[in-house]
Amino acid sequence: MQRTTFSAQHCSVARTLDIIGEWWTLLILRDIFYGVRRFEPLVEQLGISRKVLTHRLKRLTEENILRKVPYQHNPCRYEYRLTASGLDLLPVLLVLMRWGDRWLSEDGQAPVEFVHADCGQVSTAKVVCAHCGGELTVRNLRPQPGPGAVLEEIESMRSASVNPDLFKKIRL
Amino acid sequence: MQRTTFSAQHCSVARTLDIIGEWWTLLILRDIFYGVRRFEPLVEQLGISRKVLTHRLKRLTEENILRKVPYQHNPCRYEYRLTASGLDLLPVLLVLMRWGDRWLSEDGQAPVEFVHADCGQVSTAKVVCAHCGGELTVRNLRPQPGPGAVLEEIESMRSASVNPDLFKKIRL
Repeated sequence: MQRTTFSAQHCSVARTLDIIGEWWTLLILRDIFYGVRRFEPLVEQLGISRKVLTHRLKRLTEENILRKVPYQHNPCRYEYRLTASGLDLLPVLLVLMRWGDRWLSEDGQAPVEFVHADCGQVSTAKVVCAHCGGELTVRNLRPQPGPGAVLEEIESMRSASVNPDLFKKIRL
Repeated sequence: MQRTTFSAQHCSVARTLDIIGEWWTLLILRDIFYGVRRFEPLVEQLGISRKVLTHRLKRLTEENILRKVPYQHNPCRYEYRLTASGLDLLPVLLVLMRWGDRWLSEDGQAPVEFVHADCGQVSTAKVVCAHCGGELTVRNLRPQPGPGAVLEEIESMRSASVNPDLFKKIRL
């Protein structure tokens, strides 16, 4: 099956999924966050085929989410480290984990917890407004075209919505 | 190709991806958040095949992320609405969008912005500790087994890590 590409869409969710939305990719990144940086341990931990892992690591390196760093010479062997944009995917993993803990774990029993060293408590991730720290909900967020918007696309979304008022602040 | 299932893994990221990690699924949910709730407008907005959309909507309804609500009788027609667990995926979308805005938009020019009605500012999503409100980073988070943990799996991850100290607080 030919993979659909979302990268031409003027939407940051679509563009992000175009890179990290392939099966396995976020689980590979999860393991690298846990310090599993080398090919053989990744194969073992993930139970992934070598072919698929090779392909995913290549893609993530090309997209500058991982970088290859030699850890041994003769023969040369590499490990994979997170770049700045790769490290910035931690919030994505934490938010996915929080949702799974809440909705998919038996009796809400989280398989893994995180102690937040700064406060010493078992922490869960919470998504808030970067400006005021308040909660972000469907009811208090109003989409509007950003500087990279294609207005026709947003107007099309508004027309298709059963709730066009959601977009009423759009300057079209 | 047979789809790998991650649901047997004791990991909330894996379980979550098992449900929302299929191509298209998060983009369908994005459009439903924008109020595009009906089959034909979703086909048009997404440029998705009717067969794939039918399959994804069926899966999301079975997983209780969406529910079908009739909006017309004779002939009966349905629209799709987010359940409580579906609404709780908003943070996932916001965090994916934030990452794409930062790393994939030309000159950081976000295609879509959100005004946070509670503070009146253009808002971006920020992931913080639900306990203290502080930043969560690779350096200040320490994984440990949660109540739903399988200790062998976590010990295996620690053994495979180049940074086993990350897990040093684990009670094994």
